[in-house]
Amino acid sequence: MFDFQINAHCSHTRARVGCFRTPHGSVNTPRFMPVGTLATVKGITATQLADTGAQMVLANTYHLHLQPGEGIVADAGGLHRFMGWDRPLLTDSGGFQIFSLADLNRIDDHGVVFRNPRNGSQIELTPERAIEIQMALGADVAMAFDQCPPYPASESDVEAACKRTHAWLERCSNTHQLTNQALFGIVQGGCFPHLREQSAQIVASFDLPGIAIGGVSVGEPVEDIHRIVRQVSPLLPQDRPRYLMGIGTLREIAIAVASGIDLFDCVLPTRLGRHGTALVAGERWNLRNARFREDHTPLDQSCTCTACRHHSRAYLHHLIRNEELLGLTLLSLHNLTQLIRFTSAISQAIQDDCFSEDFAPWQPDSAAHHTW
Amino acid sequence: MFDFQINAHCSHTRARVGCFRTPHGSVNTPRFMPVGTLATVKGITATQLADTGAQMVLANTYHLHLQPGEGIVADAGGLHRFMGWDRPLLTDSGGFQIFSLADLNRIDDHGVVFRNPRNGSQIELTPERAIEIQMALGADVAMAFDQCPPYPASESDVEAACKRTHAWLERCSNTHQLTNQALFGIVQGGCFPHLREQSAQIVASFDLPGIAIGGVSVGEPVEDIHRIVRQVSPLLPQDRPRYLMGIGTLREIAIAVASGIDLFDCVLPTRLGRHGTALVAGERWNLRNARFREDHTPLDQSCTCTACRHHSRAYLHHLIRNEELLGLTLLSLHNLTQLIRFTSAISQAIQDDCFSEDFAPWQPDSAAHHTW
Ligand SMILES: [Zn+2]
Ligand SMILES: [Zn+2]
Repeated sequence: MFDFQINAHCSHTRARVGCFRTPHGSVNTPRFMPVGTLATVKGITATQLADTGAQMVLANTYHLHLQPGEGIVADAGGLHRFMGWDRPLLTDSGGFQIFSLADLNRIDDHGVVFRNPRNGSQIELTPERAIEIQMALGADVAMAFDQCPPYPASESDVEAACKRTHAWLERCSNTHQLTNQALFGIVQGGCFPHLREQSAQIVASFDLPGIAIGGVSVGEPVEDIHRIVRQVSPLLPQDRPRYLMGIGTLREIAIAVASGIDLFDCVLPTRLGRHGTALVAGERWNLRNARFREDHTPLDQSCTCTACRHHSRAYLHHLIRNEELLGLTLLSLHNLTQLIRFTSAISQAIQDDCFSEDFAPWQPDSAAHHTW
Repeated sequence: MFDFQINAHCSHTRARVGCFRTPHGSVNTPRFMPVGTLATVKGITATQLADTGAQMVLANTYHLHLQPGEGIVADAGGLHRFMGWDRPLLTDSGGFQIFSLADLNRIDDHGVVFRNPRNGSQIELTPERAIEIQMALGADVAMAFDQCPPYPASESDVEAACKRTHAWLERCSNTHQLTNQALFGIVQGGCFPHLREQSAQIVASFDLPGIAIGGVSVGEPVEDIHRIVRQVSPLLPQDRPRYLMGIGTLREIAIAVASGIDLFDCVLPTRLGRHGTALVAGERWNLRNARFREDHTPLDQSCTCTACRHHSRAYLHHLIRNEELLGLTLLSLHNLTQLIRFTSAISQAIQDDCFSEDFAPWQPDSAAHHTW
């Protein structure tokens, strides 16, 4: 029920255009995936989400396990039915949130025990449970339960986290039983090249339908992300989608695509939108700023979103200044549309074999700037 | 550019079905009008608003004068362009808000002076200014600047407010210059029948394209509203739309239609929605309630809104419990759709001449209950 077909290659970089087929439809890559943490992309209906060009959407296993619980989602007929989104969905494993947000009580090779922030109860999560929860949620793609070390972390700590991540991947793989859900592995290794190399090789050996690069964007310098991606990506199977977790800035996306990354996600576009910030022309514009008060032009002339087609900067400024909910929705829609359009423009450039010309100035060796 | 055609009468009550033509399209009556105070129905895009069945939408002169100011709206090309709503719009005069919300410094026959809550400056509003502001905003319908007395108020206070309202109406009428904007007068008179009668006769004498009954729903017993409407409505021109201001409950709408009211507005459906409350089957359901946690049925099987077509009560409960913006948007959409569907159902019943049978149990003389 899953396959990944590569339809075009860039002749100067590792960039490629692919199509990842899932039971709920195809995902054309490279592509940015909006984040719908609690089975909702904040403030946006399913119809509006489809209008942004979204194909695969993320939801968050940790948060959905806490509320409403996977049992209720399963009873609803699964996550697609529950949230009214009949296109591809991906659930993360919850590992990232547990290690970054939760009040951890115990972590060992068996799994982790953390405190439920809602009622103080103890929750145990093991690789087996993380997969069971994701099977109950029923997204098209489930992610392996991994240990994401913080930054900075010592080499021995990162090595231990890698070892555990690989052992857990085996248990995840053994637990995962669904044919209509793909399991993706996650490469860890922090900023240590030999650990990244080892992790890439071990995770690749599982022959899974897709692989993610995790443990990035946790506080390390951005050039480390690019170095890691340049190193790891070629070690992963050519014929499987590669997903760089938690990255959502234009420059980083373009550079990662050049290394052969296919999928991206990030909370940034919706979070910025809820704070009154719009992504325009590669910049971040605070719509609260008085310079937009009498600016009756569209936010971005080239954008196809509802905010840009039907409204002016002055109207968006008015909404944001008055803390109107519609302002947050419109800016979130715009920001998602921007990132998805950006990955679509990259895809077109690869097909026209002008990606390295149009987008490669963003490669790490170059200081050139680019507007798309 | 304006006319009001009556297409059907109920043979047992004063209810009628009409069509009010405006430069931005027709309004089929009886009809509920959503309130978009600050040039936005809170949390709802223009496309979503059209999907609720909304035809004419209200905006608020007092609030728009304060922010962003009518100059910016006029520069944008008027309120329709500014808010991206190309169907009929109505602006209230600001009088109700000034008398209920503002920090008043002076009120006399000339006008009122109040403090700008945003910067403490003094603002003077006269009938002439109120009309100039509304002409700049450019809605299809402008409302006369009236003095709405509080409840309770003495007979002499109400009499003075009526006298002023009538004098102001003359000045509003003299100031109003647009042919593509209709001016509606407002009947006052509190709970005093002889003052209501006098006000109705004086306002009717201006031969305006529509008349509103104001000064209701200000704290008086609901049966007083019905008594006032029953008394005033027959005194107004038969061939002009009659608008009952600030009323938005099913029972009150049905009873008022039976007295010949055509238009309604109320902030209730969107305000309730933002507080997690849905209007279903004539009741108010708090979606936060645990009884909806595992209820996978639609909110209202008979409703055509996005919330009811694509989502379950359990999902809405999940959104509301987690304070997700989407929950507020979906419930607001549902509540607006309910009230508009209700007025459409009344319209159909009048056309089928079964209004008195289907909806008259809501008339004040009857204790019967009805579900539509
Ligand atoms: Zn846009
Ligand atoms: Zn509904």
